Amino acid sequence: MTRIGFLGLGIMGKAMALNLVKAGFEVTVWNRNPSKCADLVAQGAKQADSPKELAANCDISFAMVADPEAALAICLGPDGVAAGIGEGRGYVDMSTVDDSTSQAIAQAITEAGGRFLEAPVSGTKKPAEDGTLVILAAGDKSLYDDALPAFEVMGKMSPYLGEVGQGAKMKLVVNMIMGGMLSIFSEGMALGLKSGLDAQQLSDVLDAGAMANPMFKVKGPMLLAEDYSTSFPLKHMQKDLRLALALGDKLDLALPTAAITNEAFKQARKAGYADEDIAAVYKTVK
Amino acid sequence: MTRIGFLGLGIMGKAMALNLVKAGFEVTVWNRNPSKCADLVAQGAKQADSPKELAANCDISFAMVADPEAALAICLGPDGVAAGIGEGRGYVDMSTVDDSTSQAIAQAITEAGGRFLEAPVSGTKKPAEDGTLVILAAGDKSLYDDALPAFEVMGKMSPYLGEVGQGAKMKLVVNMIMGGMLSIFSEGMALGLKSGLDAQQLSDVLDAGAMANPMFKVKGPMLLAEDYSTSFPLKHMQKDLRLALALGDKLDLALPTAAITNEAFKQARKAGYADEDIAAVYKTVK
Amino acid sequence: MTRIGFLGLGIMGKAMALNLVKAGFEVTVWNRNPSKCADLVAQGAKQADSPKELAANCDISFAMVADPEAALAICLGPDGVAAGIGEGRGYVDMSTVDDSTSQAIAQAITEAGGRFLEAPVSGTKKPAEDGTLVILAAGDKSLYDDALPAFEVMGKMSPYLGEVGQGAKMKLVVNMIMGGMLSIFSEGMALGLKSGLDAQQLSDVLDAGAMANPMFKVKGPMLLAEDYSTSFPLKHMQKDLRLALALGDKLDLALPTAAITNEAFKQARKAGYADEDIAAVYKTVK
Amino acid sequence: MTRIGFLGLGIMGKAMALNLVKAGFEVTVWNRNPSKCADLVAQGAKQADSPKELAANCDISFAMVADPEAALAICLGPDGVAAGIGEGRGYVDMSTVDDSTSQAIAQAITEAGGRFLEAPVSGTKKPAEDGTLVILAAGDKSLYDDALPAFEVMGKMSPYLGEVGQGAKMKLVVNMIMGGMLSIFSEGMALGLKSGLDAQQLSDVLDAGAMANPMFKVKGPMLLAEDYSTSFPLKHMQKDLRLALALGDKLDLALPTAAITNEAFKQARKAGYADEDIAAVYKTVK
Repeated sequence: MTRIGFLGLGIMGKAMALNLVKAGFEVTVWNRNPSKCADLVAQGAKQADSPKELAANCDISFAMVADPEAALAICLGPDGVAAGIGEGRGYVDMSTVDDSTSQAIAQAITEAGGRFLEAPVSGTKKPAEDGTLVILAAGDKSLYDDALPAFEVMGKMSPYLGEVGQGAKMKLVVNMIMGGMLSIFSEGMALGLKSGLDAQQLSDVLDAGAMANPMFKVKGPMLLAEDYSTSFPLKHMQKDLRLALALGDKLDLALPTAAITNEAFKQARKAGYADEDIAAVYKTVK
Repeated sequence: MTRIGFLGLGIMGKAMALNLVKAGFEVTVWNRNPSKCADLVAQGAKQADSPKELAANCDISFAMVADPEAALAICLGPDGVAAGIGEGRGYVDMSTVDDSTSQAIAQAITEAGGRFLEAPVSGTKKPAEDGTLVILAAGDKSLYDDALPAFEVMGKMSPYLGEVGQGAKMKLVVNMIMGGMLSIFSEGMALGLKSGLDAQQLSDVLDAGAMANPMFKVKGPMLLAEDYSTSFPLKHMQKDLRLALALGDKLDLALPTAAITNEAFKQARKAGYADEDIAAVYKTVK
Repeated sequence: MTRIGFLGLGIMGKAMALNLVKAGFEVTVWNRNPSKCADLVAQGAKQADSPKELAANCDISFAMVADPEAALAICLGPDGVAAGIGEGRGYVDMSTVDDSTSQAIAQAITEAGGRFLEAPVSGTKKPAEDGTLVILAAGDKSLYDDALPAFEVMGKMSPYLGEVGQGAKMKLVVNMIMGGMLSIFSEGMALGLKSGLDAQQLSDVLDAGAMANPMFKVKGPMLLAEDYSTSFPLKHMQKDLRLALALGDKLDLALPTAAITNEAFKQARKAGYADEDIAAVYKTVK
Repeated sequence: MTRIGFLGLGIMGKAMALNLVKAGFEVTVWNRNPSKCADLVAQGAKQADSPKELAANCDISFAMVADPEAALAICLGPDGVAAGIGEGRGYVDMSTVDDSTSQAIAQAITEAGGRFLEAPVSGTKKPAEDGTLVILAAGDKSLYDDALPAFEVMGKMSPYLGEVGQGAKMKLVVNMIMGGMLSIFSEGMALGLKSGLDAQQLSDVLDAGAMANPMFKVKGPMLLAEDYSTSFPLKHMQKDLRLALALGDKLDLALPTAAITNEAFKQARKAGYADEDIAAVYKTVK
C-alpha cells in the first residue's frame, strides 16, 4: 500500500488531504503552522515534523501551497523535501507556480534521486472538497502511473500531459480562454442592459443556447448584484493573461483578443479591483 | 381553434411548419417556389396562393424567410401580407432582419389594422427540427399571448422582450458574445497546439471545467479537422458584430473585446472565408 | 472676372470669405443670421437675401456650414442654392458632411443644371485665417479648374481627387491617422510620466526625432497643462473613426489599430469628454 | 584634455568615433575584429589591445556594440573594461541593451571604482555620420558633465535623464510611439489605396497637415515601392513594444493601442518579416 504525504493544509490542501484519508490511504501531513494538522490527525492522518521527514517516510508526497516562494521553501534547504526524498520516491507539486520555479524544483528533486510531477489544478474550494478537480499532470510518467489512484480521489480528470512545463502551459491556455470569455460576457451584459433588455431574460437566453456554461451561470448574478467576493482574484487572472501572451510571443503567435482582454483586466487592476473576483472586470465596462 | 399560416419553407421554415402540423394546428403554407409546399400538404397542411390570401384566412401568420429583402417582399405590395391581414389578425416575422426592416414591416401591418411581433430565433437546423429553438419575441403583447402555444411547439423558450426592436437587440447581444467566445477559443486552441499540447486533451480539459459549453464541443473538432462546412456563415457573424458595435456606439459604450473580435472576423472575410462556417476564424489565427 | 458667392460666415467661413475679398475677388455673402454679414460688407462684399439669390448672381458659390442638416438646408428648398443656380454655374460645398449628404447635394445641383464639387478642408481657425487650409476637392473637373484661383487664396494645397466622395474619403483617412497618432501619443506620455521621465524632456526627445510633428507639439503641452479647450471636438473625431471603420468594413479591410483607437475615443466620450478637445482622450489613459 | 576611448566600430560606432577624432579629441579605439581599426588609426586614433587596456588609459570610454551579450563581454572578464577602469574613470555604454544588462554593467563598473552612464541613442546610420543622434543619458551626473563635450560632437541633443534605467525607459517610450504611428499609418495607407485614392496625393495631404513627420516621408515611399530594405529591423521594434507593455504592466497602466500594435508586429513576424524593415508591418494590413 502506497504511503502518501501531503504538504500544505490551506483551504484547498486540507480538503484534498481529507479526501485521501477518507479514501483509505495512509496519509502523513505537514503544515508550516502545525496546529492546522489537528483535524487531519483526528481523522487518522500522521503528522511529520518537517518536509524532509515527510518525504523520507512516504512513497509519494503531494504539495499544495500558496505561491512560488512557499513551493521553493518546502522543497529546498536542509529541512526540505529534496533533502529527504532519496532514491526513487516521488514528489508531486500541485501548487500553481511559474515555469522557472517548476524547473528549479524538478531539478532539485531529480538531482536528489527522486521522481517529479508538476500537477497544477483547475478548480477552487468546492471541487477540492467534492474531489472533482481537474488535475494537469506533467513530468515523470512512472510517477504519474503510481499517483493515479490518488489523483482519482482528488479529481474528476487527471490527464498526463508530457514533460514538466506542459501542465503549466495547459493551465495558461485554459485561463486565457476563461479571461476572454469573461471579458466578452461583461461587454455583452453591459450592452444588453444599456439596450433596455432584462438581465434575467438575457441570462436565461444565454443559458438556453449553445454558449451556456457554468461560469456565466455563476458570474452573471454576481455582476448584477455587484457582488465581487473573490473566488479567483482578478490580479491572478491578469498575471495568467500576461504569461499566456508571453508564451504566444515566444511561439510567434499573434493573440489580439487575448491582448485586449489583458488590457481590460489591467484597466480593472488600475481602477483598484486587483483583489476582487475576476467578475469585477465588468465594473470598467458598464 | 387558431388557424395558423406559415410563409417560407426553407430548411428552417419547413421544419418549424411541420412541427406545427404534427402538433395538431390547422396550418396553411405558402412558399415563393410553390413546389416546396408538397411535403407539408401531404402531412395535412393547406396551401395558399399568395401571402395576402394566407394572411386573410389565418388568425396568426408566421414568416421565416432568408433576408430583409424577402421579408419586405412578402409583406408589402398588392399580394403581400399587409394587404390581406385586416383588423386584429396577427403577423409574426421570425426572419432575422435589421432594425429598419423590422420597423417598416411593423408599420405596414399596424396601419393595415393587424398586430405585429418580431421573433428572430437563436438556433439552426437541428433545434428547428427538434422544436428547441430560442425565440426572441417583441412587439404586440396580446399577439404574443395568442402565439404562445405555437411558440411552445417550435421552441424551448420564447420570452416576451418588450417593444419591437428588443428581439433584434437580444439577438445581437447573444451573437456578439458568441463571436467573442469563438475568437478567444481559436486563440487558445492555436496557443495550446503550438505549445505542444494534445488537441484532444485540451478539449477534454475545457469540457471538464467551468467554461464547458456546447459550442466549444461542436466547433473544437471542426477546427482540428479543418472542416468548415457552414452552419452559421462567417460573414453573417461579422455583420452581427458590426451591428452590435454600432448599437454600443449609439449607447456610448466602449466594447474593445467585441471590436477586436470584429476585426478578427473581418480578417477572415478578407482572407476569403466569408461563406464558410464561423469556425473558420481559426484559420487566420493558427 | 469671376463673381464669387460665400454662404456661411461662422469662424471658418468668415475668415475664408475675408481672404477672398482681400485678394480682390468680387464677393457676395449670405448668412442665416444676416447680422454676421456686416464685417464682410464693410470690407467691400455684397450681401444676398437668400442662398437662391446668391447662387443666381454668382459664377461660383462656396458654402462652409456647421453640419449636414445646415448643408442640406441651404441647398434644397424654394430659397436654396439649387433653386437659383441654373445652367453651368458652380457650387462648391466645403462643409464636412457624410457621404449620403454629399451625394444628395450633388444630385440636386446637377439636376438643376449646375456643376458641383465637394471640398472639405483639413485645418481649423488659424489656417483658415492664414489661407493655409488643405482643401480636398472632388467632383466636376471643369469647376475645379475654375475654382482653383479661389482655392489658392484659401488654402496652401487643393489637389483634385476625382469623383464626388473621394474628398470625404481622403478626409476620413487623414483623420483616422490623426486619431491613432493621438491615442498612441497619449499612451506614450502616460507611460513616460509614470516611469518618472520628465515631461519636457520627453517632448523634446520626440521633437528631435523622426516622429516630430506639429500635432504633438500642440497637443503635448495641452495634456500636461490639463487644458482641453476645444479646437477639434472629441466627438467629431470619434465619429470620423467610426466612419473610417465602416469604409474599411465595406472594402473588406481589417483595421485593428483604428478599431481600438475608436474604442479609446468612445471610452472618453462615455467619460463625459465629448465636447472637449481630442487631446482629452489622454484623460482616460493616464 | 580628456582622453577618449571608443569600443565597437560597427556601422554606428565607426561613424561616431570618426566624428570624435575629427573634432580634435585624443581617441583610442578597440574592436573585436582589430582590422576594423585601420581607418580610424589612419585618421589619427590610437589602437588598444583589449577593452581593459583601453579603459585603463582613457578618462572616458564609450562603447557601441550590437547586443547585450557583446555589451557584457567587453565589460566583464579579465580583459574587460571593469578590470581596467580603476578609480574615478568613466564608462559610457551607448549600446541598446535591456534593463538587467544595464544594471549588471553599472554594478561591475561601480564596484571597480568607476563611474557609469547608460546612453542609448535614437537614430541610425545617417544621424551617426552627421553627428545628429539623440543621446539618452542616465546614471552618474558628474560623468555626464564630463562627457557632454563628446556627446555634443556625436548628437544634436543629449539630455540627462536621471538614474541608470531612465535612458532605456525613454527609448522604450519613444519606440512605442513610433510603432503605433507606423501601425496606424499602414492602416491609413491601405484604406486610402483601397478607396481609390492616389498614393502620392495621400502622402502630399498628410505632409501638408499637422501630422507631417519625417518618418511618414521616409516610410511612405517604401510601402508603395514594396521596398523593405532594413534600417530598423521589425523584430527589434516588436521586442521594444513587448518591453514597453511589460513596463506598463509593472506600473499598472493599460495601453490598448500599444498592445494591438504589438500584435500587428507579431503578426508580421509570424508572416516571416522579422528581419525586414519595420515598414513591412504594412504587408499584413493591405
